[in-house]
Amino acid sequence: MHTDPIQRLILELGRLPGIGERTAARLAFYIIKASSRAVAEGGQPLSRDLAHALIEVSDKVGLCKECQNLCAHERCAVCTDPARDRTVLCVVEGVADVRAIESTGSYRGIYFVLHGALAPLDGIGPEELKLGLLVERVQQNACREVIMATNADVEGDATALYLAQLLRSTGVGVSRIASGIPLGGELEYIDHATLSRALSERRSVY
Amino acid sequence: MHTDPIQRLILELGRLPGIGERTAARLAFYIIKASSRAVAEGGQPLSRDLAHALIEVSDKVGLCKECQNLCAHERCAVCTDPARDRTVLCVVEGVADVRAIESTGSYRGIYFVLHGALAPLDGIGPEELKLGLLVERVQQNACREVIMATNADVEGDATALYLAQLLRSTGVGVSRIASGIPLGGELEYIDHATLSRALSERRSVY
Repeated sequence: MHTDPIQRLILELGRLPGIGERTAARLAFYIIKASSRAVAEGGQPLSRDLAHALIEVSDKVGLCKECQNLCAHERCAVCTDPARDRTVLCVVEGVADVRAIESTGSYRGIYFVLHGALAPLDGIGPEELKLGLLVERVQQNACREVIMATNADVEGDATALYLAQLLRSTGVGVSRIASGIPLGGELEYIDHATLSRALSERRSVY
Repeated sequence: MHTDPIQRLILELGRLPGIGERTAARLAFYIIKASSRAVAEGGQPLSRDLAHALIEVSDKVGLCKECQNLCAHERCAVCTDPARDRTVLCVVEGVADVRAIESTGSYRGIYFVLHGALAPLDGIGPEELKLGLLVERVQQNACREVIMATNADVEGDATALYLAQLLRSTGVGVSRIASGIPLGGELEYIDHATLSRALSERRSVY
């Protein structure tokens, strides 16, 4: 353990993804400066606010029993919301995906977070993704549709395909989120793979 | 205060410079994931390590009585190091600058941290930069040289010029770090201001 508190804070910040030593130092100096300014003004320093938030997260946050989303209680806000349609279930790879879909405001169903995608070479199989819990949940809620919202890459596609086969016996409808040109995208600048996917998955207009 | 710990951590992380809401969310999810993995492996979670580092910084770190650098004791490691040459003093704008100069390994004198540059319009005058303390220090150490290592921008140049005039009466030698083409720089791609400075401050070769 480093004995100098500043150096230790820089080291700890440098453990975060995408934050190198130089950025960590910049953040640490900012935290110290902002904190001493806050103390001088009689406020709560940023360093303590952040420390408390970290400790609270460490103490309280776990996985929702139903959907595996992160939450501070037994069940997350989506699973306990009576206004959500429990017969539509959206399968996503990560917690950030739930956040992204929620921020669109256009989905009223529930979720299941896999915390990853199938990657047999990395030792991530059906058990690691708790697919048993997913099947159980689909049956308990008598779901009519499961939306596969895994990423549009090889792992995400493979996971969606595997899950679709796994869920076939339950009789639930399975869909996959659309792939194609992003809104505002110009064909000229779209990569080949996306463009050929957009062509092959074209929709009939009339 | 937000009641959801995850949302609160995202908000607190988002207060750091250069970290937007999306990055804050990514960091928060990473912290939670890495912490739960560490706990599963019987280790100390990242969230607590970081929280403790923040609290320690908040409790222990202050300004060095002599040079105004951040440190955990009354005097910083440079000021208490008997091997440093106390007759050469380097004036810098910020704590990160001390770090940068120290990492070159080519400076053996002491420092004085201004914590800013002169900016009369922003209310930063000689008192805010504790210039009185600087003059006192130069005299106490019987300095033979003061190196102005403020930034090579308008504020930094103005501050260096002001300080040079302030120190004239003490009889100390005052120097300014060199401005010019950075090592490895190609003239073709250097901005006009740097290039004309490099020309006007050319050194005689023989």
